[in-house]
Amino acid sequence: MKKKPARRSSCPINAALESFGDRWSLLIIRDLMFRGRRTYKEFLESDEGIATNILASRLKSLKANGIITTRPDPEDGRRRIYALTKKGLDLAPILVSLVVWASRYERTSMPSALLRRLQDDPNFLANAAERQPN
Amino acid sequence: MKKKPARRSSCPINAALESFGDRWSLLIIRDLMFRGRRTYKEFLESDEGIATNILASRLKSLKANGIITTRPDPEDGRRRIYALTKKGLDLAPILVSLVVWASRYERTSMPSALLRRLQDDPNFLANAAERQPN
Repeated sequence: MKKKPARRSSCPINAALESFGDRWSLLIIRDLMFRGRRTYKEFLESDEGIATNILASRLKSLKANGIITTRPDPEDGRRRIYALTKKGLDLAPILVSLVVWASRYERTSMPSALLRRLQDDPNFLANAAERQPN
Repeated sequence: MKKKPARRSSCPINAALESFGDRWSLLIIRDLMFRGRRTYKEFLESDEGIATNILASRLKSLKANGIITTRPDPEDGRRRIYALTKKGLDLAPILVSLVVWASRYERTSMPSALLRRLQDDPNFLANAAERQPN
């Protein structure tokens, strides 16, 4: 396994940004955590229109950072199934904080009932994600 | 003022990533929120070694997204002072969730006493930021 390059600094915010600080990685994590998507083809279908080379590069980086794992699909050995690790599932509070902020300041599609539920119980989505079979 | 380009989707997580989803923007926000930095020169001095052209581009984008404001320094009119808007200050819970996650999974410099305090009271840093004079 290749040695990881040194971090830019020892700041925890920087460590997080070096793991998934880009415009795409957290969308893949969203798809795995909340939308039940598990294959390359399913990630490609998201509304944001990720390019295939960017998707491949982000999946590789998320795996190298221990956030996702892959295994062959038992029904089709050429296809791979992606899943979040514990480290990846623990990104749920970050996604929730992004949702709460954006729903306050940006035009989004967040249903207001779900938003109210989240504001009453910030762990609601995180707990829902952890109840998912892995 | 230029019309903003359409978002890639209506998802709130995507809206947040389009505003500050890169490896640098949240470090500038960290410097403003927790380190008392307010000038271009001070941002350049952070450990991560941001390049001057990237810093200029990120400051412009954060301002266009309503996350920071600038005003001339009353002591030196050629220098600009940067500050977080309310929208920017409300990013505090996102920074806190990054800190909590990275402190659990990455080697960082987060003091364990501060981390325990954050885990007991997730609003601790956010409240501290809001008590700051703007």
